[in-house]
Amino acid sequence: MTFSAADHAAMARALQLAALGLNTTSPNPRVGCVLSQNGAIIAEGWHRRAGEPHAEIHALRQAGGAARGATAYVTLEPCSHFGRTPPCADALIDAGVARVVAAMEDPNPLVAGRGMARLRAAGIVTEHGLLETEARELNIGFVSRMTRGRPWLRLKAAATLDGKTALENGVSQWITGPEARRDGHAWRARACAVLTGVGTVKADDPQLNVREAACERQPLRILIDARLEAPPAARILQGEPILIATACEDGPRIASLSAAGHRLIVLPNAAGKVDLPRLLAELGTLGLNEIHAEAGFKLNGSLLREGCVDELLLYLAPLLAGDAAHGLFNLAALTRLEDATRLDIRDLRQLGRDIRILARIARG
Amino acid sequence: MTFSAADHAAMARALQLAALGLNTTSPNPRVGCVLSQNGAIIAEGWHRRAGEPHAEIHALRQAGGAARGATAYVTLEPCSHFGRTPPCADALIDAGVARVVAAMEDPNPLVAGRGMARLRAAGIVTEHGLLETEARELNIGFVSRMTRGRPWLRLKAAATLDGKTALENGVSQWITGPEARRDGHAWRARACAVLTGVGTVKADDPQLNVREAACERQPLRILIDARLEAPPAARILQGEPILIATACEDGPRIASLSAAGHRLIVLPNAAGKVDLPRLLAELGTLGLNEIHAEAGFKLNGSLLREGCVDELLLYLAPLLAGDAAHGLFNLAALTRLEDATRLDIRDLRQLGRDIRILARIARG
Repeated sequence: MTFSAADHAAMARALQLAALGLNTTSPNPRVGCVLSQNGAIIAEGWHRRAGEPHAEIHALRQAGGAARGATAYVTLEPCSHFGRTPPCADALIDAGVARVVAAMEDPNPLVAGRGMARLRAAGIVTEHGLLETEARELNIGFVSRMTRGRPWLRLKAAATLDGKTALENGVSQWITGPEARRDGHAWRARACAVLTGVGTVKADDPQLNVREAACERQPLRILIDARLEAPPAARILQGEPILIATACEDGPRIASLSAAGHRLIVLPNAAGKVDLPRLLAELGTLGLNEIHAEAGFKLNGSLLREGCVDELLLYLAPLLAGDAAHGLFNLAALTRLEDATRLDIRDLRQLGRDIRILARIARG
Repeated sequence: MTFSAADHAAMARALQLAALGLNTTSPNPRVGCVLSQNGAIIAEGWHRRAGEPHAEIHALRQAGGAARGATAYVTLEPCSHFGRTPPCADALIDAGVARVVAAMEDPNPLVAGRGMARLRAAGIVTEHGLLETEARELNIGFVSRMTRGRPWLRLKAAATLDGKTALENGVSQWITGPEARRDGHAWRARACAVLTGVGTVKADDPQLNVREAACERQPLRILIDARLEAPPAARILQGEPILIATACEDGPRIASLSAAGHRLIVLPNAAGKVDLPRLLAELGTLGLNEIHAEAGFKLNGSLLREGCVDELLLYLAPLLAGDAAHGLFNLAALTRLEDATRLDIRDLRQLGRDIRILARIARG
C-alpha cells in the first residue's frame, strides 16, 4: 500500500483536527476527518464530545453534495454500529464518497475492520495504515482500553536532578518552576482522570483539578485511600464528587462519603491495600482512557511494582537535595541491574529552568 | 564596538582552530588564529602543545610576506612576555599586520591588556570582545585558574532516572550505554586531570585513563585517599605515576608510594580528611586547568558541600532502581528548598538510550 503526498497531507490535517478534541472527547477517541476532491480539501470535521456528532458527520455536513465522489480521510476506522449516534460508515455511503482512507483500524478487536468492510460492500475503495503510528499515539489511552481492557497510566513526578521529590521534612513546594507546573496541568487536562494517594492528600492537600490550562471539563479525580484516612476537610473531597478506591469496609465512613456524592470502590488485596491492577480494570470498564497519576514515593512504587505504570512524565529541576531527601520510587532492593525497570525516552526538552522527560516503560 | 560579518566569520573559524587543541594544550590555553586580507582568510594556525609555537606564529609562518597589512583574529589576546616562546605581540608587529582582533583579553588580571597595548604602541589597530563568550567557554579551566587560582572542576556522574548510581550491593556496571560511556571518555580526554576517591577505587577499581576517545596524552590521574587505603594492586596505581592527595602522614606508606613514582600531597583538614579547597588551590599552582572528577556519593557530596564543584556532567539512564539503591550526593539534610544547591542547565541531549545533562552550579 503506497500513499501519495496529497494523501499524507490530508491525513496530517485530519490528525491536527482530531487533536482539537484532546481534552474533551473522553470516553470517546479523538477523531478528525477531511474530505478532498482531486487532492484539494473541501471539508473538515472533528469530534468534540461524546453524544455529539462524530468527525465524519461534521465533515459531510460541511461538504453537502460536494461529498459525492470525494475521498474521506479519517484518523480512525468509521464506526459501523449504532452507539449514541448512527453509524458513520452508513453516512459516508449515503453521501456517495468514493474512497475512504483510515489512519488505523478500530482498536477494538471485536469490531476491527467491520466499518471498512461495510464501506467496501457498498463499492467504496478503502485503505488504512496511513500515519498509523501518529493516530495510535493520539489515542493511546483509548487503544489501551480497547486492547488491554485498562486505561493508559501516565505517572507524573517532579524531582531534583538527584531524584528527590521532597525534603526529609516533606517540603516539596515548589521544586519545579512555573513553566513545568503549567505543563503538568496541560497533561492533567487531557487525561480522563487524575489519580493520587492518601499520602499526598495528607502531605500536600492538593485540589487535583486543572487550573493552569484551558479545560472545558475537569477530569474525574480518583483517590487511593486503603483505610479511608483522608480528612473530610481535604480539598480533594470538595467540589465535584470523586472516585475513592479503598480496601476498607467501614460502613459508616463509606456511607458518609457516599452521602457526599463520592463513588466508592472497595477492592482489597491480600495485603489489605487497594488491588491496583483490579482497580485499573475497573477504571477501564468506566470508560476511562488516560489516567494521570500524581502520587508520593509509596504509591508510585506500588503502581510501578504492580505493573500499572505505562509512562513516566518526569520533571527534573536543576537542584540537588542530597541523600536525606525523599526519593521517587519505593521499590524492593535489587541485586542485579538487569532487574531494574527499563524505559525508553520518548521526549526530552527544557521547560523554563527545568527538564521534562517523557519515558515509556519497556515491556517484555 | 561593532564587528562585521566577515569579522564574525573569521573569529568563528579561529575558534574552530583553537578547539583542535582541546585535548593537548594543557597547561596552556587552546588558541586559534586566522589572518585575513580584504575579508578573505589567507592563513590559519592553532596551538597544539606547550613548548611548541603559539597559534599566531603558525599563521604568520603560513602567510609569509602576505601578512603585511592583514587583520589577525586571535581567540585570546596575544602574549607580550617571554615564556617558553618569544612574545606573539612582537611577531605580529614584525610581520606588519595592520589590525588585531582578540576574542578576549588575557584572563590573568596581572597581564590583561598588555599584549594589546604593545600592539597599539606599534601603530596596530586593536579590538577585542568578538565572540568572547565562546572564547571563554573554550578555555573555561584556564580562565578559572587565572582568575580564581584554581581549576574548573567538572563532576561526572551516571545514574538511573531516579538518581541512583549503584544498587545496594554496589553493582553499577553498566548503568549507562556505550554511547554515554564513550562520551564520558571524550570529556576525560579534554581534562588536565581525572580525579577520583579511594571509595571508587575499592568498589570499581577503575584505570581512570582515556580509552574510548582519541587522546595524544593521558590526563594526570588524581586519587583522594585520606588514609592511604588504596591497595597496592589497584589499577589506578599501575602505569603512569599518579598524584595522591592524603591526610595521612604514615611515613613508610608514603615512602613506598613515592618510590613507585607517585607524587603525594599531604593536606589534612580538621576532620582528618583531605582539605579539598586547599587541594584545588594546589592543583592550580601545578598548572591544571580542567579537572574531571568521577567519584562515589561520599566524595561527590564532600566536593559539593565544600564548594569545589563548578559543573555537573550527569548521564541518566532510562532505568529505575528504587530507593534502596545508592544516591548521587551525600549531603546534609535540608529543611528549606531555598537551601538546595541550584544549577543552570547548559546542555541537554540524548546519547543512545541515555540522557546527558550539563549543568553549572549557580553561584551567589
